[in-house]
Amino acid sequence: MTNPIESLIHLLTKLPGVGQRSARRMALTLLRHKESLMRPLAQALIAAADAVQPCEQCGNLDVRSPCSICVDPRRDPSLVCVVEDLSDLWAMERGHVFRGRYHVLGGTLSAIDGRGPEELNMNRLVERAKDEGIKEVILATNATVEGQTTAHYLTDLLKECNVTITRLAQGIPMGGELDYLDEGTLGAALKARLPF
Amino acid sequence: MTNPIESLIHLLTKLPGVGQRSARRMALTLLRHKESLMRPLAQALIAAADAVQPCEQCGNLDVRSPCSICVDPRRDPSLVCVVEDLSDLWAMERGHVFRGRYHVLGGTLSAIDGRGPEELNMNRLVERAKDEGIKEVILATNATVEGQTTAHYLTDLLKECNVTITRLAQGIPMGGELDYLDEGTLGAALKARLPF
Repeated sequence: MTNPIESLIHLLTKLPGVGQRSARRMALTLLRHKESLMRPLAQALIAAADAVQPCEQCGNLDVRSPCSICVDPRRDPSLVCVVEDLSDLWAMERGHVFRGRYHVLGGTLSAIDGRGPEELNMNRLVERAKDEGIKEVILATNATVEGQTTAHYLTDLLKECNVTITRLAQGIPMGGELDYLDEGTLGAALKARLPF
Repeated sequence: MTNPIESLIHLLTKLPGVGQRSARRMALTLLRHKESLMRPLAQALIAAADAVQPCEQCGNLDVRSPCSICVDPRRDPSLVCVVEDLSDLWAMERGHVFRGRYHVLGGTLSAIDGRGPEELNMNRLVERAKDEGIKEVILATNATVEGQTTAHYLTDLLKECNVTITRLAQGIPMGGELDYLDEGTLGAALKARLPF
C-alpha cells in the first residue's frame, strides 16, 4: 500500500457503490485531471470536513449550528418534521414542499443492528417538543418495518409532550400504475380513500 | 455554490459513473466518517497528485520516471506491448501474463473526436523501437473499430523500424458460450482455428 495510486483506489472503494473497477476508473480520471478535479476535490473534502458540523438543535449538517434551516425566520418553528437521515431531509428540501423545521434521528431503531433509542437523536427531540413551542411533529420516517417501528416508539415518547403527532400519508405514488404496485400500498391507499 | 457540502457534491458528480444521487450518498458517507475516510481521502488525493507523473519512456503513471515497470530488470526489454490507456496496462498487469514492457498511447485515433496521431504518444514509440533494442511490438489496442484503426496506423509507422509487429489473438473468450457470442467473434475464431 505504499503506492499512492493503490492507496487512493483503496480509499475510493470505501465510498458507497464504488467497487474495485469503479475506483480504478475514478483514480484514472482524477490523475488525468489533476488541477481541474483532483486537487479541487481534495480541497473540497478538507473544506467540508473542517466547516461542516451537526446542528445542535436538529442534527442537520451545516457550516453553522444552529443550522440555516433552524435559524431561517421564514420557516414555521411550530412544525417539526422528523426524518431518519440527512438524505431524507435533503429529499424533502428538494421537493420544496415543507416550510417547517426538521429533526434528524440519525437512523432507525434496529434489533438486528443493535441500535437502541440512546443511539438516536431522540432525547433532544423530546426536549425540543417540550420547550420550543412546537405544535406538530410529523413523523416522516421511511415506510419500512424499521422506520414504522421507530415512528411508533417516538409516538410513545412524545405522548407526555403537548404536541400533535402526524405521519406522512400512504397511498399511490404520483404516476403510479396499479398493476405495478404491491398489495400493501394498494391496501393502504384503499383504506385511506378520500371523497372525490 | 458557497455551501461546502454542495461544492463537494458538485465535484463528486464529475467522477465517472457518479450522478447527483450517488454523489449525495458519497458526501453523506464522507461526512459521517470525517477522520477515518474524508481526511485520509483528501490526503491520498494530494499525495497522488503530487507524486504521480507520466513515465518519460512508456507513458505509464508512476511515482518515478522511468516507471517501475521500465526499470524492472526482470522484464524483457525487447518486448513492448502497446496499449490504448493506463487502464489497459493495469488489466494486463492484473493477469500476470506479460513480462515485457509497455507503451501507453493515451487513447486512439478518432475522426469523430478529432484525435490525430500528434495527440497520441506515438512518436516516442517509434523512437523507442529504433533505439532501445526492441525486437517485438505487440499491438494490444482494443478490438474496436478505433482500436484497430490505430493498430493499422501504428503498423505503417513502425514499418521502417526493424521490429516484429504482432497483435493479440482474437477468438472465443474463456468460458464463452457460442450461443451468446456475436458473429464477428465466431467468424474470427473460425478463421484462426488451430489444430487440436
